[in-house]
Amino acid sequence: MTTISTDAAVATLVNVFTVDPENQRALADLLTEATEQVMRHLPGFVSANIHVSDDGTRVVNYAQWATPADFHAMLADERAREHMAVAAKLAESFEPHLYRVTSVHHA
Amino acid sequence: MTTISTDAAVATLVNVFTVDPENQRALADLLTEATEQVMRHLPGFVSANIHVSDDGTRVVNYAQWATPADFHAMLADERAREHMAVAAKLAESFEPHLYRVTSVHHA
Repeated sequence: MTTISTDAAVATLVNVFTVDPENQRALADLLTEATEQVMRHLPGFVSANIHVSDDGTRVVNYAQWATPADFHAMLADERAREHMAVAAKLAESFEPHLYRVTSVHHA
Repeated sequence: MTTISTDAAVATLVNVFTVDPENQRALADLLTEATEQVMRHLPGFVSANIHVSDDGTRVVNYAQWATPADFHAMLADERAREHMAVAAKLAESFEPHLYRVTSVHHA
């Protein structure tokens, strides 16, 4: 279980992949596999949370790293780069940005 | 504190706003205010989590609703529509999609 909080000292990556609905399942499976095999063993990895859109056209990875530097180090990792290259081929486009949480609201 | 889990019976809205960095703070504040005043009192609201990107160009609302129908009912609410119209004016574009969580990974 992942938690979102304004107190957590994490860098949040939200990566939105736009995808042909035919490839949505394959992309989600690939991200799951890459996370288990590579990403989650890298320094500073906190969590990854893979989402598929109801309309079939998007996959979102909501991921948490201890620091922005840990995220940037991952981008330079050879095995991570191999997985990201396959993901890029399955997607039409993708938009990774680093975020911080500014507010959390509940009912 | 918000939780992400594959077990949770929620419909997840990920809404990515693209914004002029000059307007990022105002948009995040508006979403926070709209959530507190209107959204969180609507039926089926579970959580909203407002994020700002380090590069200044994005605001993300990661929100949870009990069901897709609750989310769609919100879209028809008059007060919610007023807030969304102001948000739309502050943003260059926005991309709301409903998702389900397919996998959650930890270090």
